[in-house]
Amino acid sequence: MGWQPLSDPLDRTRFPVEPWSLREVSPSLADLGRTETLFAVGNGYLGMRANPEEGRVAYEHGTYINGFHETFRIRHAEDAYGFATVGQTMVNVPDTKVIRLYVDDEPLLLAVADLPHYERVLDFRSGQLVRRLTWRTPSGILAQIRSSRMVSLSERHLAVMTYEVVLDRDAPLTLASLTINRQDGEDEYHVSGPDAGDPSWDPRKTEVFHSRVLEPALAVRDPLTGRLELGYRCTNSAMTVALAVDERLETDSGFSRTDSLETDLAETRFTVQAKAGQPVKLVKMVAYHTSRGVPPAELASRCALTLDRADRSGLDQLELEQRDCLDQFWQRSDVVVHGQGAIQQAVRWNLFQVIQAAARAEGAGIPAKGVTGSGYSGHHFWDAEIYLLPFLTYTTPRWSRSALRFRYTMLDAARRRARELSETGALFPWRTINGEEASAFYAAGTAQYHIDADVAYALNQYLRATGDTDFLEREGIDILVETARMWNGLGFMRLDGGGGPAEFHIHGVTGPDEYTTVVNDNLFTNVMARFNLRAAADALRGIELTNPEAYSKAVARLDLSPDEPARWLESAGAMHIPYDSSLGINPQDDQFLEKEIWDLASTPPSQRPLLLHYHPLVIYRFQVLKQADVVLAQFLCAHDFTSDEKLADFDYYDPLTTRDSSLSAVAQGIMASEVGYQELGQKYFREALYVDLADVHGNASDGVHTASAGGVWSALVFGFGGLRDSDGQIRFDPRLPELWDGLTFRLTVSGARLRVDLRQEELTLTLEAGTQADVFVRGEPVHLSGSEPTVVALAGQGPRLIGAPTARDITGARRSDGSVITASVPPAVGDLTDGATGSDTG
Amino acid sequence: MGWQPLSDPLDRTRFPVEPWSLREVSPSLADLGRTETLFAVGNGYLGMRANPEEGRVAYEHGTYINGFHETFRIRHAEDAYGFATVGQTMVNVPDTKVIRLYVDDEPLLLAVADLPHYERVLDFRSGQLVRRLTWRTPSGILAQIRSSRMVSLSERHLAVMTYEVVLDRDAPLTLASLTINRQDGEDEYHVSGPDAGDPSWDPRKTEVFHSRVLEPALAVRDPLTGRLELGYRCTNSAMTVALAVDERLETDSGFSRTDSLETDLAETRFTVQAKAGQPVKLVKMVAYHTSRGVPPAELASRCALTLDRADRSGLDQLELEQRDCLDQFWQRSDVVVHGQGAIQQAVRWNLFQVIQAAARAEGAGIPAKGVTGSGYSGHHFWDAEIYLLPFLTYTTPRWSRSALRFRYTMLDAARRRARELSETGALFPWRTINGEEASAFYAAGTAQYHIDADVAYALNQYLRATGDTDFLEREGIDILVETARMWNGLGFMRLDGGGGPAEFHIHGVTGPDEYTTVVNDNLFTNVMARFNLRAAADALRGIELTNPEAYSKAVARLDLSPDEPARWLESAGAMHIPYDSSLGINPQDDQFLEKEIWDLASTPPSQRPLLLHYHPLVIYRFQVLKQADVVLAQFLCAHDFTSDEKLADFDYYDPLTTRDSSLSAVAQGIMASEVGYQELGQKYFREALYVDLADVHGNASDGVHTASAGGVWSALVFGFGGLRDSDGQIRFDPRLPELWDGLTFRLTVSGARLRVDLRQEELTLTLEAGTQADVFVRGEPVHLSGSEPTVVALAGQGPRLIGAPTARDITGARRSDGSVITASVPPAVGDLTDGATGSDTG
Repeated sequence: MGWQPLSDPLDRTRFPVEPWSLREVSPSLADLGRTETLFAVGNGYLGMRANPEEGRVAYEHGTYINGFHETFRIRHAEDAYGFATVGQTMVNVPDTKVIRLYVDDEPLLLAVADLPHYERVLDFRSGQLVRRLTWRTPSGILAQIRSSRMVSLSERHLAVMTYEVVLDRDAPLTLASLTINRQDGEDEYHVSGPDAGDPSWDPRKTEVFHSRVLEPALAVRDPLTGRLELGYRCTNSAMTVALAVDERLETDSGFSRTDSLETDLAETRFTVQAKAGQPVKLVKMVAYHTSRGVPPAELASRCALTLDRADRSGLDQLELEQRDCLDQFWQRSDVVVHGQGAIQQAVRWNLFQVIQAAARAEGAGIPAKGVTGSGYSGHHFWDAEIYLLPFLTYTTPRWSRSALRFRYTMLDAARRRARELSETGALFPWRTINGEEASAFYAAGTAQYHIDADVAYALNQYLRATGDTDFLEREGIDILVETARMWNGLGFMRLDGGGGPAEFHIHGVTGPDEYTTVVNDNLFTNVMARFNLRAAADALRGIELTNPEAYSKAVARLDLSPDEPARWLESAGAMHIPYDSSLGINPQDDQFLEKEIWDLASTPPSQRPLLLHYHPLVIYRFQVLKQADVVLAQFLCAHDFTSDEKLADFDYYDPLTTRDSSLSAVAQGIMASEVGYQELGQKYFREALYVDLADVHGNASDGVHTASAGGVWSALVFGFGGLRDSDGQIRFDPRLPELWDGLTFRLTVSGARLRVDLRQEELTLTLEAGTQADVFVRGEPVHLSGSEPTVVALAGQGPRLIGAPTARDITGARRSDGSVITASVPPAVGDLTDGATGSDTG
Repeated sequence: MGWQPLSDPLDRTRFPVEPWSLREVSPSLADLGRTETLFAVGNGYLGMRANPEEGRVAYEHGTYINGFHETFRIRHAEDAYGFATVGQTMVNVPDTKVIRLYVDDEPLLLAVADLPHYERVLDFRSGQLVRRLTWRTPSGILAQIRSSRMVSLSERHLAVMTYEVVLDRDAPLTLASLTINRQDGEDEYHVSGPDAGDPSWDPRKTEVFHSRVLEPALAVRDPLTGRLELGYRCTNSAMTVALAVDERLETDSGFSRTDSLETDLAETRFTVQAKAGQPVKLVKMVAYHTSRGVPPAELASRCALTLDRADRSGLDQLELEQRDCLDQFWQRSDVVVHGQGAIQQAVRWNLFQVIQAAARAEGAGIPAKGVTGSGYSGHHFWDAEIYLLPFLTYTTPRWSRSALRFRYTMLDAARRRARELSETGALFPWRTINGEEASAFYAAGTAQYHIDADVAYALNQYLRATGDTDFLEREGIDILVETARMWNGLGFMRLDGGGGPAEFHIHGVTGPDEYTTVVNDNLFTNVMARFNLRAAADALRGIELTNPEAYSKAVARLDLSPDEPARWLESAGAMHIPYDSSLGINPQDDQFLEKEIWDLASTPPSQRPLLLHYHPLVIYRFQVLKQADVVLAQFLCAHDFTSDEKLADFDYYDPLTTRDSSLSAVAQGIMASEVGYQELGQKYFREALYVDLADVHGNASDGVHTASAGGVWSALVFGFGGLRDSDGQIRFDPRLPELWDGLTFRLTVSGARLRVDLRQEELTLTLEAGTQADVFVRGEPVHLSGSEPTVVALAGQGPRLIGAPTARDITGARRSDGSVITASVPPAVGDLTDGATGSDTG
């Protein structure tokens, strides 16, 4: 679980550099969990981890459907009013991935098999996971095996698998295709190697149920076609799922088929008299449908529709459609890092994760792990709005709208939650699947009121980039107004002691940095709340001017009183923004600078991440950050701060930041590049880029860090491309790394698609679609029309500072034992022998 | 669960005023839980709630043994490093209270019986609960019944019960004596009236086990004597308990006896041919022994020893010993409120609760509910040190030493806990039975570091009052040193921005006021930590000067480095004490004054106590107090503050204080009297006095508020008697209420017993025991020797201010809607209709 150094992020003898795929050329049991995640396939609705077809040993045999969850009563060890009561957790839906091969009745077991050849490839253009093996069976037969697995982007509910075997001599061959309810049934072997970690305690892991989750509601097999239909209902949430499975064997060899069906296990067994050189190919098509309460039988008939259509299309056509979806995706979304093969591959892997997480989410939102793992219980967080949606907004805006509509559908729940917290308006939950707050730890959960502003920010960015007034007027405005109301009620006006004007304060909140909780005037929160208050007032004013009818409807729908927007603007204008003139920096909150400084340089790697080695009270007591939220605020609200402020704040916070949050590297890297620490910016970019590929946080096993994957695009486009849009304009101030030949990316703005080619000496802008666009390059307006490239010369790539900022002392302050407080590290945990004798080392 | 007004604290037609007892003259099902508590009997080791002998309907059939507990794994809904892991809860040991009466085979059921006469009396001098009934049976027989119940003060492990019946005509009569394991067995009817409340949610209630707690280990009955012996072992904690029961029938009528014995139920049934006018009397003697692991059979033999000795003594002798113990107690401890019969009765009830909680605790500590109920799971809190121990220290110091030794025995656990919290020294747990932290909510639990100083304070007070150098040198010094080390490591030196000297700050702690948590420089904590640091250094210096050998041993035992005490004194001298010069008050913490003020006057009673109606984050955000800890600090460390400061602070905090804590009224009342709000002081005194008798907090059902009961003595002696001892001297500055004729109390100091008779015009001091004492009265030294009274004339009873302080505005501050922020009340909870439409009323 410790920190991994980044010197060699991927073992290239096992994962060679390739531009359009991730390829593994030798199997390993040592990092099963990570590779299950890295090679997972999904479409944002349905996801399958990369468990080998043969099943058996695994970190987690996972198949997930976005939004399909079980609920449970949250039992607080010590309860209090308003604590979240209903837990939610993603369910592991029945596993259809299993296809077992027996030759001469000997099973193929990857862990022990003699495999002269092995490779599996996740192809970012075909959208398939393909595996090619040569297996020397115990009896000496050579079996050539090719298997493929695809979750369809064109058919939301469909997954297609194939398993093809060719033997080098005649032999009896059996293919057993299984469907297993692993959520409740007996599961297979789980890995217990170092990759599995200690499952007994990690607060980031998921809930475990001790009673049955999926109640069987339907289990039939069509006697004619052999089609399997299974249906279940979740015990508590009453959500329903059905799946249907078609299994078809293609071979010229003779074979027989037997089917079996039990509650949690269905099997179709093809027994083949395989002839040497004759392919034996199993095609398995699977459909999943889910609902909040539609009877499983009805869902099963929807599955049948899906499978019937898939049968009509056929395998080849489905694979073509898949490739076509991806071609279009890459046309809109690809980022080319010229001359950097390894980085290029990693960039595309990350962007591919975003389409796998978002493409067909369609109203279910985008969970922290997409559909690739059970980490964070399948919950939705603010990460989606801040780290993932910028990419979607600027490349596939309809996916962004879909994710934002997910928040709209949760608005009533957010209104109820605001009332529970004694506030007006709406308060979005810190973590949720169904809209109800599921965070059981308020200090680092419910107290993160900033989530309201994060939603408003992403919504505003989407509206600016698309001009989607329809969404604004009918739904978006409700989000903006209700979140603004929450802020205006949460904060209050107070005179400071110094005779200045009254300021608007927001107390008792936690910012994105979870190593400091429940503080007054968290800078990130206040800056974002100010943005939120203004965005709501501006949007209302805009609707009033352009669409009086929509405005009237909104006023009535929201019971808007005429003076509300003016009050929001007054609060926003009076917003207290912490500033310390002696240090020349923006304190993270009003008390932050009064704390001791944690000496990170002296904290050994064995004590990282801090959250797993120190009581929260210890961490909260120090100046030490999980992520630097002041720096994040200065990225998001770039135009609220001067360059000098950004540099001073970066200098101050960077040495205090553990980056124990996987979200940290993206914003920290973008701002490092902006203020001039360009090498540091690249270092942080690599940290984000390889967060899963190199398992930087030691928990890639639990699923893809989807927000970080989306953040890779932000790091490229905002960080190196120098894009800023916080004033509603598209502005570039590039920071191309010295060793890169160039960077090419696309932006879709108001329907036009702009290609940006960044080189060391120039920036070339080309309209790939649409008729015109207006941007700024280093403050100079550039008007684009037609398809001819516009070349803007660049005088360098911004300021360049050497190295990285280091911790500074607070002059003269010292502990009672005489030591300077900057070196105040808590004693090592577990050092009982020394401590128990009472030696006071301060 | 709401607040009860105090206009009529007790129904005097049901509970008549009497000086030496609490008498109930009519039964009621409406407040079963409260009367079970009010009439409970105990000796600090063993406690029995006042369930009627006949059993049946009850709020809680409780029998408790101090320190006898079961453990369980605390499951946190969201875990983090260092959170408490082992929960502890007091076990309901097998119930021997049940004696059922049948006449003509008709059972006496109190709830429906025809009772021409009913009374039960808890006698503060006999130490018995006695009940006298006349029952008109369904067949018209008149049965005179007298039952008694006594937990012996002289025999720690013994309880004695009698049940005597006289009929007015011959009839068959049965007495069934039962022993029931209610912890695991099927329980009887429980009350479901308003008194029971909603058991589903109150964070102050106890844990519930879902599996067997008491594993049977022994169940035998002596065939000759009929003596019952039962033994059990707790499933998780492995603690053991055994009990033995002797049942003897005394009557001239003929009778037969039958015994039965099952796992969780033993019964002895006496079937009597009762003659008119002939008494039938059952004497039931019970012994309980417990251990951390001694086999139950061994404990059973100890029970046999206890019962054999009791048999030899006989009932009369045991009752004499009980009365003798109490006579001595009252000689040392009685407080006479002259001319106030109702108050006198309530005072004695409270003081009687203290002997019932403390007399034979002997190393087990004194839990929050003593042995009278399962509230707070039988846990030990800081309340004991601050509210209970002063009474014990000044009247029965050996009980105080016993309670302090309980902390000493937990010192190693406290050392481990400090290490878990990354601190040096020792950190006593917020709540515990066995020494391990059991608080599952760190913000209002573990963060209350002040508990270390509270223990040191009580220890120091004890040492000053007794001069017990033996305890100091061998054990007490270890507590003082280890707590001082904790403080010196927790805090740190920091220069303020204004050019002043460096100050010692303590961050991230919660003071006694749980409506404000995890703050920097909580005044109470800093003041008490300063005290703790100095007390440790002073004590070490004292030992060094008076007993070099003991000093050397302590240095070696504690691995004390020579410069440690100097560092403690340096930290203490530099301690930051929050002060706001513009308001002229001591802020509760460094951020307190920056918060909005909660308008308590506009908060309806239905929303009280706040903790049951508002999310902690809402409460924490406002200036609103559960108890005023600045005021408490100014009581405890009286000499650290000027009179002006105390008045200003009282004026500021009193209107902000909800007194939702039962501990609030005592300190608030004492300081109200001191600063001059004498009527308010009396109001708060009444609130403390009747906290259980009038069920002020709605949870008297769960057991006696032991600390509040002890606090009544503090309110009398410190509050009205004007005692202060924080500089090590006994100082009086009386505040006798205008309507009281006088107040008499005793203080035991250095072995001498001083009687203090306070009248409006004079204070009379008399040595009842010992040869001399030195005190101060209003600053003038008074030397006492011999038995002659010393009379000191008093010019009045201190300052008298009218009314009570009221909330003040913070001038000019206002919310964005124009309202003044002093009137900033969160919207009513549950007001969804209004809120959901989005009306922003600020």
